[in-house]
Amino acid sequence: MARGGRSGACGIDPVDEEGPVADGTTTAPVAAAASADRRPPARGSDFLQLDVGDAPVGGKADWLARRLRQAMADGRLAVGSRLPPTRMLAAELHVSRGVVTEAYRRLAEDGHVEGRRRGGTVVVAAPPARPAAPRGAGPCRGPAPVPVDRAGPGAPFAGEPGADAFDALRAAPARIDLTPGRPDLTAFPRTAWLRAERAVLAELSAENLGYGDPRGAPRLRRAVAAWLATGRGIRVEPDEVLIVAGTAQALTLLSPVLRADGIDGVAIEDPGSLGTRQHLRNGALATPPVPVDDRGVRVDALRATGARAVLLTPAHQFPTGVVTSGERRRELLLWAGDGGLVLEDDYDAEHRYDRPPAAALRASSADVCYMGSVSKLLAPALRIGWMVPPPRHRDALVDAKRFTDLGNAVLPQLALARLMESGGLERHLHLLRGRHRRRRDAMIDAIAEHLPGAVVHGAAAGLHLTVTYAPEVPDTELAAAALARGVKCQPLSWHRQAPGRPGLVLGYAAPPRGAIAEGVATLGEALRELA
Amino acid sequence: MARGGRSGACGIDPVDEEGPVADGTTTAPVAAAASADRRPPARGSDFLQLDVGDAPVGGKADWLARRLRQAMADGRLAVGSRLPPTRMLAAELHVSRGVVTEAYRRLAEDGHVEGRRRGGTVVVAAPPARPAAPRGAGPCRGPAPVPVDRAGPGAPFAGEPGADAFDALRAAPARIDLTPGRPDLTAFPRTAWLRAERAVLAELSAENLGYGDPRGAPRLRRAVAAWLATGRGIRVEPDEVLIVAGTAQALTLLSPVLRADGIDGVAIEDPGSLGTRQHLRNGALATPPVPVDDRGVRVDALRATGARAVLLTPAHQFPTGVVTSGERRRELLLWAGDGGLVLEDDYDAEHRYDRPPAAALRASSADVCYMGSVSKLLAPALRIGWMVPPPRHRDALVDAKRFTDLGNAVLPQLALARLMESGGLERHLHLLRGRHRRRRDAMIDAIAEHLPGAVVHGAAAGLHLTVTYAPEVPDTELAAAALARGVKCQPLSWHRQAPGRPGLVLGYAAPPRGAIAEGVATLGEALRELA
Repeated sequence: MARGGRSGACGIDPVDEEGPVADGTTTAPVAAAASADRRPPARGSDFLQLDVGDAPVGGKADWLARRLRQAMADGRLAVGSRLPPTRMLAAELHVSRGVVTEAYRRLAEDGHVEGRRRGGTVVVAAPPARPAAPRGAGPCRGPAPVPVDRAGPGAPFAGEPGADAFDALRAAPARIDLTPGRPDLTAFPRTAWLRAERAVLAELSAENLGYGDPRGAPRLRRAVAAWLATGRGIRVEPDEVLIVAGTAQALTLLSPVLRADGIDGVAIEDPGSLGTRQHLRNGALATPPVPVDDRGVRVDALRATGARAVLLTPAHQFPTGVVTSGERRRELLLWAGDGGLVLEDDYDAEHRYDRPPAAALRASSADVCYMGSVSKLLAPALRIGWMVPPPRHRDALVDAKRFTDLGNAVLPQLALARLMESGGLERHLHLLRGRHRRRRDAMIDAIAEHLPGAVVHGAAAGLHLTVTYAPEVPDTELAAAALARGVKCQPLSWHRQAPGRPGLVLGYAAPPRGAIAEGVATLGEALRELA
Repeated sequence: MARGGRSGACGIDPVDEEGPVADGTTTAPVAAAASADRRPPARGSDFLQLDVGDAPVGGKADWLARRLRQAMADGRLAVGSRLPPTRMLAAELHVSRGVVTEAYRRLAEDGHVEGRRRGGTVVVAAPPARPAAPRGAGPCRGPAPVPVDRAGPGAPFAGEPGADAFDALRAAPARIDLTPGRPDLTAFPRTAWLRAERAVLAELSAENLGYGDPRGAPRLRRAVAAWLATGRGIRVEPDEVLIVAGTAQALTLLSPVLRADGIDGVAIEDPGSLGTRQHLRNGALATPPVPVDDRGVRVDALRATGARAVLLTPAHQFPTGVVTSGERRRELLLWAGDGGLVLEDDYDAEHRYDRPPAAALRASSADVCYMGSVSKLLAPALRIGWMVPPPRHRDALVDAKRFTDLGNAVLPQLALARLMESGGLERHLHLLRGRHRRRRDAMIDAIAEHLPGAVVHGAAAGLHLTVTYAPEVPDTELAAAALARGVKCQPLSWHRQAPGRPGLVLGYAAPPRGAIAEGVATLGEALRELA
């Protein structure tokens, strides 16, 4: 791929926004910038989450240029938007105006912005999230045929995936596990967790060992509220937080609540998580698909479904990795303002490698039902998550949680609260970011080597990437062949409702780099044999 | 109360079977005893579960008299029944006939039995579960009117209890908490739990921190299967055990599974747990009431409802404390054999003071869906329980558990497994039994002193007792008045569907003895003021 330049649907491309997985079309960012009338007003350093304290000594201009590139990459500075006037930004950041001018000059040199006299400095092309060395690119291929025959040699991939698809895949013996959704579990902070448990057991009152508040332990709700404010831009009172046993439970709690509110379906992203779709359908909700393009879910298509609710992964779309653009965010918030309900599944937003995390949608609207968990921060086995529902659904969700299990177990809640309060969770996240980034890079390297015709999507954040490949081989067949060779992964088609290009969803966070390289090499062998 | 004298509906009576709570009528024990025809045949030492190995050296007669008193107190030797002939019992126990004669003589001196020549030795009055000092007795009162006006000063008791009734009561400020359902939480084995957690964290593989088996950790399922075999007579494979987040969750998982099986209602005991009823109704199941008498649920009435399923607490009926008689067990198993489904809520069966625990119904039939938890063994805050469902519902329940939360949290499951394997849980239970028994005795003493007209039910086992009292005061009013004085308890009417005698359900396991005495004294004051 072209470093810092445009990248198309072919070649290795670790950028979310490039190479749309969903519909094969590409956007034309420069055209949008051509009309000055449509340009959003300049936004200041607050909106951009800039803090010059992060800048290295003597490297402020470089730092600022980098942060602005990140803001463009993740959509906070959409193509067509104006940068803040240099004088204003310099004042806000307490830096000299020369620092800002120099940063803007670098961006102009990169081709990302253009100076337009009275129009100010305008974003004309979003950069990729991380510079990557050029790699060999295979020939471009057309859209994939619909996989018809899914019956492969691996049983988990024979036929339509059932409710136990993930369990069956987990139970299948394999040498290397490249399924997505797990952080590096070898890094789980066992000592810190045990220390937190010890402190909790030492200080806990006997009453706290009884039946508790179904909304969760007050201390954890306070810690989560603080966590969401710091990391996700969501400012809520602890009483607005509901502790749940992960997002899977959140969806199950929501289903009857939504149905009671007259909502009989939840639109979902396509591609979008198979597990999410199964949960909603189990809750007797329809799941009309809405296509995802390189800016996120298509809000025009969402409106066309007539659905009153939509489930989204705006921070890092699953499985494509697209980060919802600023424009789409605004469209979504307009849709929500018209009475739509956004269910925001913020499953891995904290894992950013090449950019600061974009704020959650819930930060901009109380009409959003926010869901997060520690499954990708610490371990899925903890079964702790949280919801920040819209006020109108709060009481019904508390009732649903009470009936489901009377509330989460208390000891792990309090241990987690301590880990959040002490900064231990933040430190763990920092550690994970470094490890995950190295593993991601190892996977991208291995893909370039062993799957030369493949395109990588969504690698700028999260714990997984999606790779689309030469289309002749149905992905269930490829996944089955890989499993037969001892390598687990998920076929992209599991996560599709509409037909589309075949691919694999590969988790890079959990396995060590050697296993990643070996696993991807095995995928390459399997693909070559099948093709 | 009259020590060792006759006890009717008046006077302290810690016997389950006296003064049936269910239908507001009283039995006439002495009249029953007068008709020799209706006397049950004499039962031997097997039935009485006597083992002379328990007797102290040189104290066999005393020991035997004590055990027989216990058998009378807990209803195994009902008023009107014959004691075994002295010669037969002596032979069975391998003691001299003089020991038995002496024991019978003491019981006759106490007024519990009478010698009736060819009629043998007949029980004429059940003693309290433990000898208590004589106390002043109040006047006898007739059956209670139906409580009409439930609006008292305490908000939790104003109007029909809603889904948040227990939370509201828990949140209400109070000095002393006599609500039922919690063991002595100050005894929670914090050190042993932490040690188990440390061992778990030291040996756990990273994979075990990922998404797990929705049925529960295999190690805990093995430990629970062993626990159920030893303590509850249930012999099942670990794969037949499903780990859940307590019985509340078990009921919520069951509802859609039962409905899918064409079962639209679950008959429940009356009186019976309000929480259970709320859970089943939340699951869109009807809850036709079936009266409970002094032998357990009335199976004839169960058949009359036409219900295909019934939820029972056979080991220690909630709230009356009745232990299901052998005859009723047989009737229930016949009903189950005819296609009925018994949901067995074995919530506190391990807590026996004056008798060994009866085996679970599930031990006798795979058509029983068994549910248990650690809420009364260790702490409700752990949210760990288990189900042993009938084979035909197993897969659907696993699916329901998967959709609900993908399975319980793993670390606490493994810590509990270690506690079960090491014998730590058994030791804890032994410790609890001693503490609970002393607290129960303190409560019975306090009731005798401060609620002289009251009758105690169901104190031979469990963590709570039910007390019925002078009937003019609706129990919600009394509970509200007590709460206004800083003492929490539950009105018996919360747990009734049909009208019946007012009463209170009082937990004695969690509060210390001083608080119990003070709390019951406050109840007495409140009752005197209201009466």
